[in-house]
Amino acid sequence: MKILLKNISAAVPGVMLGFPQIQQCDIGIEGDRISFVGDTPADFIPDRTINGADKLVIPGLINAHTHAAMTLLRHRADDLPFMTWLFDHIIPMEDRLQDGDCYWGTLLGICEMLRSGTTCFNDMYMFIDDIARACAEGGIRAVLSRGLLGESRDDPAGLSRLDDVTKEINQFHGANNGRLTFALAPHAPYTCSPDYVKLIAERAKELGLGIHTHISESRDENAQIAEKYGMTPFEYFESLGLFELPVLAAHCVHLTESDIAIAAKHNVSVATNPISNLKLSNGAAPVKKLLAAGVNVALGTDGAASNNSLNMIRELGYLCLVHKGVNEDAECVPAARGLRIATMGGARALSLADQIGSIEPGKKADLAILNLNHSHFTPRSNLLAALCYGAQGNEVETVLVDGEILLENGAPTRLDEERIRWEAQRIAERICSHG
Amino acid sequence: MKILLKNISAAVPGVMLGFPQIQQCDIGIEGDRISFVGDTPADFIPDRTINGADKLVIPGLINAHTHAAMTLLRHRADDLPFMTWLFDHIIPMEDRLQDGDCYWGTLLGICEMLRSGTTCFNDMYMFIDDIARACAEGGIRAVLSRGLLGESRDDPAGLSRLDDVTKEINQFHGANNGRLTFALAPHAPYTCSPDYVKLIAERAKELGLGIHTHISESRDENAQIAEKYGMTPFEYFESLGLFELPVLAAHCVHLTESDIAIAAKHNVSVATNPISNLKLSNGAAPVKKLLAAGVNVALGTDGAASNNSLNMIRELGYLCLVHKGVNEDAECVPAARGLRIATMGGARALSLADQIGSIEPGKKADLAILNLNHSHFTPRSNLLAALCYGAQGNEVETVLVDGEILLENGAPTRLDEERIRWEAQRIAERICSHG
Repeated sequence: MKILLKNISAAVPGVMLGFPQIQQCDIGIEGDRISFVGDTPADFIPDRTINGADKLVIPGLINAHTHAAMTLLRHRADDLPFMTWLFDHIIPMEDRLQDGDCYWGTLLGICEMLRSGTTCFNDMYMFIDDIARACAEGGIRAVLSRGLLGESRDDPAGLSRLDDVTKEINQFHGANNGRLTFALAPHAPYTCSPDYVKLIAERAKELGLGIHTHISESRDENAQIAEKYGMTPFEYFESLGLFELPVLAAHCVHLTESDIAIAAKHNVSVATNPISNLKLSNGAAPVKKLLAAGVNVALGTDGAASNNSLNMIRELGYLCLVHKGVNEDAECVPAARGLRIATMGGARALSLADQIGSIEPGKKADLAILNLNHSHFTPRSNLLAALCYGAQGNEVETVLVDGEILLENGAPTRLDEERIRWEAQRIAERICSHG
Repeated sequence: MKILLKNISAAVPGVMLGFPQIQQCDIGIEGDRISFVGDTPADFIPDRTINGADKLVIPGLINAHTHAAMTLLRHRADDLPFMTWLFDHIIPMEDRLQDGDCYWGTLLGICEMLRSGTTCFNDMYMFIDDIARACAEGGIRAVLSRGLLGESRDDPAGLSRLDDVTKEINQFHGANNGRLTFALAPHAPYTCSPDYVKLIAERAKELGLGIHTHISESRDENAQIAEKYGMTPFEYFESLGLFELPVLAAHCVHLTESDIAIAAKHNVSVATNPISNLKLSNGAAPVKKLLAAGVNVALGTDGAASNNSLNMIRELGYLCLVHKGVNEDAECVPAARGLRIATMGGARALSLADQIGSIEPGKKADLAILNLNHSHFTPRSNLLAALCYGAQGNEVETVLVDGEILLENGAPTRLDEERIRWEAQRIAERICSHG
């Protein structure tokens, strides 16, 4: 299959640090790859041509931290502080999840992510066989992990979780032409004992996988770890050798200068989640300082129970706006940098920078195409500003992953969205009925 | 004309301080008014029935501070600090505006506002005869003012602006069945001399009008006023007697405790603009403290040159999220309070609380109806949380002002949106070509 995007406005790597800039060009797709960006070669005969007039194509957005199946818990616990939200509301509902539920919850999340331009997500949740099945059917790119909680290296529950997940990884890793891969996920410093973290790190080394975790999401977490170990959460994980592996750390709201130096030293990537951090009253991550220290920053929505959507375009708006305000610095996270964080930042964090994250020949054809014919995009001038400061998400019309069209005219091509919504509603009513 | 909204989820005044709560009911509209909320009386024979299944009706949102015609400057000056943005970029472009331009710019803003559920806006800009004409054609409710800048009571430019605006007010005030009204607008403490402010206040008393102004938007402004008068901007306006009139003060980002007490004492309403304040790196207004002090808070988008949209649903999300984060208080501006600020807060600020701002019998039928059939609204449970934490704006399907349907199936009924976009593009290219 050859697809031609004809005379389209494209966010391609620019001269300045590779930050995206807009170029009017043709883009050719052959199989799962971008074959050219620029003028169409005479011998490129497309099977299908998409007219680029009034369209903007961007690299598919990479949701670098989410719990997609938590769509099932959406709008069920709002206006609550983090630890109350988690232990008194979310976990009791999650305890009622059954086999199959996360299949539907993840499919719902995939519908929502495709509709707002996301082509790849980094997930951490339970029932990952269900989640893997949903991803395989939905066709989206994903890196999956199961949140691992353990009180010791010999904690039977912790051990069985790790063994189960190893089986699932062996079954699904690389499925769907490599669209589906895995990481191991020690849930957080406050839910994993030191020797359990070490056990996970050993297993990750054996399996050749990266690490996905939460660090310093709340002040409470920092206080707990200080009391227990006399360290910051970053220092705690560093002391256990976890950062010898490729690590993506979500949140990182409450960091010391020394934590930031640790992240930079070990090439830890930070997935920031501005909406969730605001909503659960945790604050705003020190994104300006992280960027200044050279830390790779990626962007995620977190789960829909604390967002309450999985809309990366909306999240990109918060990323570009919140840090200007809290730092009183209007140049903090300008539009081009924001888009880079939401694309290449995620690709680097997931060790996929050679495959995805930018519109370049040879990379996977993971793309989102927005319709620019909207009053809120008029007059048309700076399209990166339009994307970061004015877009809502619903402007996304077409999404390709691996060169396959997964969203067309704003609707998923592979999935029965009506059925998915119906099943999600049914499950939500069951798990929330006691909540 | 009688319209029936049949069996619809409606955000009606609740028992707790009148904060909106969701009720399943019928709503009857007769002429320009809501005639009932509850069960349909036997003698109510509608000319038209809107089926409320899968719909949410909210009071039309009130954009309490904007410069609608600044849509013409959208995406032209981004990632810049406030004073640079204003004096080096915005004002030079505004100096090239000609007669007729603001007519098209305002129409574009009206399209965008209707599409995202706004039924009333409070505007401050130039060329208000053009703006009044646009509002009369668009049918939206509006309170218009011209930003008045003057170096002294005898400044000829300042005087002629005030005289011109008085003529326009006499021509248009109360037009369109009262949908169009006016205020006087001393632009800001840093652009109005003391005796010019007094002159405006005298004129407002004569004309029986309220005041619309900007106060304490930036730290620079506070520093300028402190240097010039040894006061805060709030104290400066108080000392001139301005607060003896009904005043709506936009921004109010940098306030002292004493400023907040002044606002409370004189019933000054504050129109907060969270997105614009973040974008221009001014920070976040002390909304939590203002609410605690009993100050009436309203919500506005500011102009599209610093937002970059006029989407009040998006703004409502920022209102509900930002203050949770900066105050580290998850209960700050919960969803119901946020919606009340975006509706009744605006109505009170514009002295229109007896007419608009809530869904109650006898009030004007200014309503926005959202379609709930979206993946990001699934599963369906807490609709106020869905609106404040998950909605994008494009879910708005139908908008009524004065009982007249101005948006249907998501498109304006009265306006030729294609033409408006074309004209706005043409004007923007002219005024920005030297920028």
